[in-house]
Amino acid sequence: MPTNSHPLFGGIEGGGTKFVCAVGTGPNDIRAEVRFPTTTPEETMSQAVEFFKQQEENFGKLASIGFACFGPLDPHPDSPTYGYILPTPKPGWTNANVVGMVRSAFDIPIAFDTDVNGAALGEWKWGKGQGLNTFIYLTIGTGIGGGVFVEGKLLHGLLHPELGHIPLPHDRTKDPFDGVCPFHGDCFEGLATGVSIEKRWGQRSATLPPEHPAWDLEVEYISHALTAYSYTLSPQRIILGGGVGQLPHMLPRIQQRTQQLINGYIKSPAILENIETYIVNPGLGNLSGVLGAIALGRQALSKN
Amino acid sequence: MPTNSHPLFGGIEGGGTKFVCAVGTGPNDIRAEVRFPTTTPEETMSQAVEFFKQQEENFGKLASIGFACFGPLDPHPDSPTYGYILPTPKPGWTNANVVGMVRSAFDIPIAFDTDVNGAALGEWKWGKGQGLNTFIYLTIGTGIGGGVFVEGKLLHGLLHPELGHIPLPHDRTKDPFDGVCPFHGDCFEGLATGVSIEKRWGQRSATLPPEHPAWDLEVEYISHALTAYSYTLSPQRIILGGGVGQLPHMLPRIQQRTQQLINGYIKSPAILENIETYIVNPGLGNLSGVLGAIALGRQALSKN
Repeated sequence: MPTNSHPLFGGIEGGGTKFVCAVGTGPNDIRAEVRFPTTTPEETMSQAVEFFKQQEENFGKLASIGFACFGPLDPHPDSPTYGYILPTPKPGWTNANVVGMVRSAFDIPIAFDTDVNGAALGEWKWGKGQGLNTFIYLTIGTGIGGGVFVEGKLLHGLLHPELGHIPLPHDRTKDPFDGVCPFHGDCFEGLATGVSIEKRWGQRSATLPPEHPAWDLEVEYISHALTAYSYTLSPQRIILGGGVGQLPHMLPRIQQRTQQLINGYIKSPAILENIETYIVNPGLGNLSGVLGAIALGRQALSKN
Repeated sequence: MPTNSHPLFGGIEGGGTKFVCAVGTGPNDIRAEVRFPTTTPEETMSQAVEFFKQQEENFGKLASIGFACFGPLDPHPDSPTYGYILPTPKPGWTNANVVGMVRSAFDIPIAFDTDVNGAALGEWKWGKGQGLNTFIYLTIGTGIGGGVFVEGKLLHGLLHPELGHIPLPHDRTKDPFDGVCPFHGDCFEGLATGVSIEKRWGQRSATLPPEHPAWDLEVEYISHALTAYSYTLSPQRIILGGGVGQLPHMLPRIQQRTQQLINGYIKSPAILENIETYIVNPGLGNLSGVLGAIALGRQALSKN
């Protein structure tokens, strides 16, 4: 088994439909990667463990593992349910001790956080969050979620932010659609995910051309949400990822509409003059997730 | 002039209508206090300076001064406009270098932050924020604003949070009122301040009995806002102050409605089971402001 002079990290991007695992040190050094569907916790976590064991044969011992996972989850190391998935509609995953399953196979530091907090950390280390002390990473696709970096740290607070579920203005005379969120109906996620677009218009969002009115509504909801985040979290930047969030025709419209909604109330050149660097797409593109997991692993090592 | 074995602090609670200045070390040791109306920056700041000079005659030198002020303001020590009031409708205060006016009279550390961040710090040190690492202090009165403490620090980010200005659901079939915010119309502050209650119902909010429908609407808007904060800032607690926020008949209704709106989505006993300790009134009551300023002064000293 070869040994490393520089530490090597494992990263797990645990999504609701697929897992991505990788071994490396950063964006220019991913040594191996694997993707597999999310099934039961036992089967899925075994595949992750198996992958890392194989990679240790190839590259030597891992120094730490970062695990950026779908939620809700418990990220507080002092809590009795640290490392668990919390009650979730996803069958079989409620109260699964997913960190325990990794820990039983690897006696190294393991960091555990939300997928979106991981992505935020990856963007902070290597992407569009570099040099910032407070920013948001928001993903809009089949779901909506966000990671939050505040005053130099990932925000957990009570559990972790759930940026997708804020209440928003919903003018039913313009959009009578009830929303798809099983908890809240017409919260942000209920009105604006890919799923709600599909259900509202009866066709897949990928088939809707840029001039379709679906996107006018979408710009409206996203811009109201970014306005709410700007007032509550006071970010220096908002990074907009995900399949919907990265549609090229959307970004300029969201920038313009958010600036209009804030209407000069936040007296900062970042918003008044430089909105195109205030709301941006990710620097790491679709690698934000797995690189975020590796960034979590790096952070775990520096803390231990 | 007597000298102190223990350091003594000055606090300025700078409000839009009145200033409160005090000298002391904490809730059980306020040595002197003065209140005067907010007029021009020069006159108002001179009165504050004069008060502290007099108190130094009585009690000895101050170790530091904390200044918790109405905003918008620039709280970033590295910024060229640090210590300034930013553009504001308040005549004469735009770009006033209020910290400079204190500094020219006192060569000691001066801390400067929003009035509501000051109040949050005071609650963290002596009130209902003790032992927490992430919480919100929200005041609802003639205006709405909030201070935010995240992961062990006051949140500034780009400038500072402006919790009063988030967009909210506004069902015009139930409440056709347009809102009073000059920037946003029907944002939270536009719909729910004391001023908007008065304008909507044509009478002062203090004259409206608890069973008046004004309070049903008020509970609705406040609870939607607390739901939004719970999802974005993930606080361990929300402290609700101000004239409207501390009305005794409101708190239980806001607790119940917020819990209902979150609808079990945040899987924490703090919200699911203990909502009466999740949303609370301030521990310091109406002294949150001036004690917050003294707490800022204490913090300035420990940093310098």
